[in-house]
Parts: sequence; C-alpha cells; structure tokens
Amino acid sequence: MPYVNIRITDEGCTTEQKKQLISGVTDLLEDVLGKNPKTTFVIIDDHTSTDNWGIGGETVTEVRKKGV
Amino acid sequence: MPYVNIRITDEGCTTEQKKQLISGVTDLLEDVLGKNPKTTFVIIDDHTSTDNWGIGGETVTEVRKKGV
Amino acid sequence: MPYVNIRITDEGCTTEQKKQLISGVTDLLEDVLGKNPKTTFVIIDDHTSTDNWGIGGETVTEVRKKGV
Amino acid sequence: MPYVNIRITDEGCTTEQKKQLISGVTDLLEDVLGKNPKTTFVIIDDHTSTDNWGIGGETVTEVRKKGV
Amino acid sequence: MPYVNIRITDEGCTTEQKKQLISGVTDLLEDVLGKNPKTTFVIIDDHTSTDNWGIGGETVTEVRKKGV
Amino acid sequence: MPYVNIRITDEGCTTEQKKQLISGVTDLLEDVLGKNPKTTFVIIDDHTSTDNWGIGGETVTEVRKKGV
Repeated sequence: MPYVNIRITDEGCTTEQKKQLISGVTDLLEDVLGKNPKTTFVIIDDHTSTDNWGIGGETVTEVRKKGV
Repeated sequence: MPYVNIRITDEGCTTEQKKQLISGVTDLLEDVLGKNPKTTFVIIDDHTSTDNWGIGGETVTEVRKKGV
Repeated sequence: MPYVNIRITDEGCTTEQKKQLISGVTDLLEDVLGKNPKTTFVIIDDHTSTDNWGIGGETVTEVRKKGV
Repeated sequence: MPYVNIRITDEGCTTEQKKQLISGVTDLLEDVLGKNPKTTFVIIDDHTSTDNWGIGGETVTEVRKKGV
Repeated sequence: MPYVNIRITDEGCTTEQKKQLISGVTDLLEDVLGKNPKTTFVIIDDHTSTDNWGIGGETVTEVRKKGV
Repeated sequence: MPYVNIRITDEGCTTEQKKQLISGVTDLLEDVLGKNPKTTFVIIDDHTSTDNWGIGGETVTEVRKKGV
C-alpha cells in the first residue's frame, strides 16, 4: 500500500505527463516490490513556484537565470 | 504537540467542513492520547487536482469517469 | 481518497490507540466529506524523539522539563 | 529538481531493491519530464509498522490477517 | 543532502523574504552540521489559507479574529 | 504558525546540534517574517539511512563511496 509524493516546480507538467508519472511509478513499485497497484497512491505536487524552491542557498529562479 | 496533515482532492471542501475536520481531529487526539489541543496543528491540503492524484496506476480523473 | 498523516512524539502510543486514531479519522472524513473509507489512507508517525521536535525555539524535551 | 518521497510498510525492502526504486524513479522523471538526474532527490521511508498504517479504517496488520 | 520544507499561511511572503529563508536555512545547516549547500534543498509552501490551518481546534482565521 | 520539517541522513546529529537547528530556524522565521516563536513547530527527521536516500539516481551510500 505504498504512498508516493512527487514534487516538481510549476513549469508546465501536462495531464498526459502526469498519467505517465502515475502509471510509471505504480509499475515500478509492482515490479521491484510486488506491491498491489490497487492500493498504490501517488500525489504529484506541481504548484511550487521556482521562487519557493531553493538549492545551493539560492532560489531556482536565480539558478535558472545563470543557465545552470 | 501533534501535527496532522489531511490531503484531499480539490472538489469543494467548504470553510464549515474545514472547521469540522480541524475540531474533529483535534478532539480525537485529545480523547485517544490526551494530547493538549492548544499545541495540536492541523493542515488541510485541498489544492490537489484529480489529475495529480493517482490510485491503481490511473489518475482519479480517470477513475471517476469509470464511476468507481 | 484522502491521505492523512498524524505525527506525534514517541511517548508510548499503543496498538489499541493506533486503531482508534485510524478508525476515528477515517470516520471523520466519511461523516464530514462523504469520503469512501475504502480508499482512505492514514499513516501514524510516532518515531520522533522529543529531542527532535521543537516548539517556541526549544526542544519538547526542554519544554517538558519546565512542566509545561 | 524533483523531490520524491516513497513510503512503504517495514516489510523487508532490501538494499538492492532500494537502489532499483531510486534509479527507476529518477529515470522516470528524466524520461517523462526531462528532469536532470543530478538534482533529483528520492527518499524512501520504510520504517512504518503495519500497525501504524491504516486503510479502510483498519490497520494494515488487521487487513493482512484477513488475507486481503 | 538535507531537505527542508517550510510551511506558512498565505499571508504575503515576498520573493525577497523567500530568498532570505532559503539562504538562511541553508547557512544554518552548513554552520551546525557541516552540510554542503550545493545539495541542500528547501521548499517553501506558502499556499495554505488560514481557513485550512488549525491550532487549538480552531482555524487560524478564527484565532486571528480573536486577536491572538 | 510555521511548520518546518528538516530531513537529514542518520549520520550522528547530536542533541546539542538539534537544539541549534530548532532555535536557529525559529529565529530565522521570526527575523524574516515576524512569526511568533511560540507557535513555530520544527520536526527533525534524522532516521533515514544513506541507503534510503538517493541523488543522481544513486543511493547516498554509493555517492559517499566515490568520495563526493
């Protein structure tokens, strides 16, 4: 009965891509651990602005400007 | 000093229902564990689209269409 | 298809109390929002030491010593 | 720069299986969204007892006894 | 490789304040634990309405009205 | 009423260091956002093995072996 939370920045994940992430991670848990897909929960959080996400002490907005 | 996070899909939870969830879960923690309500935190996340929530390898949008 | 995470300090929550928390919060979500219990997930995290939990800038260990 | 949290019950996930979950989900995010693996974080929480996990208002311990 | 999640109510955190939170908490983890800033992740969740946040069994909206 | 969750690998964070993290992050939220320390919650999760934490598609255990 796994629970998976995927967090990404709000940079345009489409409905089709969400479907692929949900089916992909559910398959992975079945393949690797034999987990029953029926009770696998996946929640995708794609609401986070690049201003709200930091790495290396900077916002992702700043990191992106530097072309990293 | 419990912390409770309730996640639901964004299908119209009213302010009154949020109050009931918050008081209900705070009472539950006091009744069962004797936790002081003053330091019980509850956060309701009701921003998640049915496209972003998966069960059984499908999005809840798809599951709902099937009338499950 | 709600997901609920309850976090408490590791101060002796019994198996019976866990059952009461799980059934209580599942009932609450059915009563208030009409959520189907079959797809309500509840995870109780009771592994956190009072040294790892802070409130008011202090650990709960320190807060407890003061008799609060 | 995705962050993925996988939660499963503590029923014997091996080091090899953890590697497969981490590489599998990192590959998935690269394939579907073009995310750079270098900044993909994955955390597997496999510490949760079946007594602490509820579905359908019951603990997973109880659900397993019924042979579901 | 720390991961930090900061949750606050949606009451007007500016981009400049977000930068200060991200750099501040990254510095703290380097100063106290020697953690490499390059792999420190910080996510600020400031989307939560005061209606969705409870303390003492009440929503923060209600608590604020009382002038607490 | 902020809630902060700090996740680190289980590599020996002392009680004194935990105190510094809790007071440091509580001060930061007061300094930057004027948040009342009395209702600032901090939870440090330091139970995660380097086998359970992935970056770049590998476990931190593997990354450490390479001397990164």
